[in-house]
Amino acid sequence: MTRPTAAADHHHHYPSEATTHHLPLVLLHNTKNFTVPFQSHLQARFHLIDPNTQPDPSLQPISTSIRVILCVGPSPLPSTTLNLYPSLELVVGAGVGVDHIDLHECRRRNIRVANAGDAFSDDTADYAVGLLIDVLRGVSLADRFVRAGSWASDKEFPLGRTVAGKRIGVVGLGSIGSRICRRLEGFGCRIAYNSRRMKPEFPYQFYGNVHDLAANSDVLILSCALTDETYHVINKDVMRTLGKGGVIINIGRGALIDEKELVECLIEGIIGGAGLDVYENEPNVPEELFELDNVVLSPHKAVVTPESFKALADVVVGNLEAFFSNKPLVSEIWLNVD
Amino acid sequence: MTRPTAAADHHHHYPSEATTHHLPLVLLHNTKNFTVPFQSHLQARFHLIDPNTQPDPSLQPISTSIRVILCVGPSPLPSTTLNLYPSLELVVGAGVGVDHIDLHECRRRNIRVANAGDAFSDDTADYAVGLLIDVLRGVSLADRFVRAGSWASDKEFPLGRTVAGKRIGVVGLGSIGSRICRRLEGFGCRIAYNSRRMKPEFPYQFYGNVHDLAANSDVLILSCALTDETYHVINKDVMRTLGKGGVIINIGRGALIDEKELVECLIEGIIGGAGLDVYENEPNVPEELFELDNVVLSPHKAVVTPESFKALADVVVGNLEAFFSNKPLVSEIWLNVD
Repeated sequence: MTRPTAAADHHHHYPSEATTHHLPLVLLHNTKNFTVPFQSHLQARFHLIDPNTQPDPSLQPISTSIRVILCVGPSPLPSTTLNLYPSLELVVGAGVGVDHIDLHECRRRNIRVANAGDAFSDDTADYAVGLLIDVLRGVSLADRFVRAGSWASDKEFPLGRTVAGKRIGVVGLGSIGSRICRRLEGFGCRIAYNSRRMKPEFPYQFYGNVHDLAANSDVLILSCALTDETYHVINKDVMRTLGKGGVIINIGRGALIDEKELVECLIEGIIGGAGLDVYENEPNVPEELFELDNVVLSPHKAVVTPESFKALADVVVGNLEAFFSNKPLVSEIWLNVD
Repeated sequence: MTRPTAAADHHHHYPSEATTHHLPLVLLHNTKNFTVPFQSHLQARFHLIDPNTQPDPSLQPISTSIRVILCVGPSPLPSTTLNLYPSLELVVGAGVGVDHIDLHECRRRNIRVANAGDAFSDDTADYAVGLLIDVLRGVSLADRFVRAGSWASDKEFPLGRTVAGKRIGVVGLGSIGSRICRRLEGFGCRIAYNSRRMKPEFPYQFYGNVHDLAANSDVLILSCALTDETYHVINKDVMRTLGKGGVIINIGRGALIDEKELVECLIEGIIGGAGLDVYENEPNVPEELFELDNVVLSPHKAVVTPESFKALADVVVGNLEAFFSNKPLVSEIWLNVD
């Protein structure tokens, strides 16, 4: 019943159809244009069911046997989808954020949830620092300037801003946020953070809310999960408080920021700049931003390296194998703890 | 005799002509389009002679009294110019590199030379790291991609490369190179260096020549001075050794690299990418580079922030005041030591 894609046929070896039926069933849930870079790796271990290449599994007898969904990419997994699989026990997300999964419904049904763990943390932290240096020093702007031939024709290039000594406010001091801080220590930045709770194991100044953090920061870096509490946590008031020299870096989720207000604040100079890898309505980016020189725009690619994919494959396989052998998951999200 | 520019008249307060004649004489040497951002700061302390706004000082009686030249920007200071000033004792450069000054002639005549010291070191190190992340992770490329509307139209974006774990080879472990290393430690990079001599005070692997360093590196970062020995130190052989995944970052001087060969190596995929702030024939950048996605180009702006200029003003004034009061210079280059 499972059929690998034609592309996989050409490039990979995996157990034939006849031999996969004894393997544990895993339903793939993903958007059509999101490829699973390690699909062959999974096919050696699991009987994958891909609704994109075979009849809708929810219409078939097999749907009642599905215990695990592997959610590739940020495609929404609402309760209506979850409810098609009465035996569902586990959703494995292939990203760090799990805001696309209906966690309330998972909690209600005691469906466990795992995420990508630390697989993307280094790459994401690196990218956050790259965006920060780029916005402050104008690296992308410099590249556009040179490629347009403006240097040779003696045009003015604006002054950059020094990274050293900047007051950095990190929102969310988890696996990614703490790595961002470690990197920025080497630049001589002064680091503070906001987080659900104070983390005394880190030597950084804690602020109990984002407003106070903004009041004491030159740069805000958003590296927290998107939840009901963090939705639009960066609103106009926070941006006014950050002020006209202030910079926002977002490698978390677009909806952490009120994007409409952000665009206005950038255009009106209420804040000084932004480096954005994520947006509220991806892949759509507000076109007003395309004309601004004080922003760096990136297409949600902070994690996309071969090294990240390898690490992700390890975490995903680790979670699936742990589940089917009744061992503790590698990166479970504890839904009942808040 | 000295006349400030019209622009300075409007913006700054400084001693009038009548009161400057008791101040120590300092001859400015700079290219016409290079402004001195702290000229008013200097005019309060020194009697500045600017050949761009007044008759050629070398033709005047005053030329024999000139003891100090302040060289602003990288405009060449050859022996023919030095020889116009028989009483010259000191050249203060306003940059880190002093390759535009005829150091052989200075040594012969016992003219002392000072540079910008550490004024630019933090900004330059930050910029080097910014270029490195940009080349490996494609930040500028991502920005171009989004601004062109390619994300919304579902075009492919290439995979980036992870920074963590990369083997970084730093050429020149001075004030800038050592700061680059400190920053990259936070990213989990493996760091090695080449330098005129081994520096056991640093915990990094030393290689006695650039070829061996390239053979053991994924990335070469050039942060050494341009001298007779380092001219074209990155030649085709070194680039072949670095290999097709290899990346070169140059925040030193353009002529550290054989630029013609670099362009060929980038086009042919002999190396994997480059981040360049400096070029052999500035402001001219080889136009073949404009079409490449694996390069990041910047118009010699690694140091241009208000913070750098402030630090530079302090170093320049410090050197000049030390000289005129017979104290040790702040940042003397020792020409007789090699």
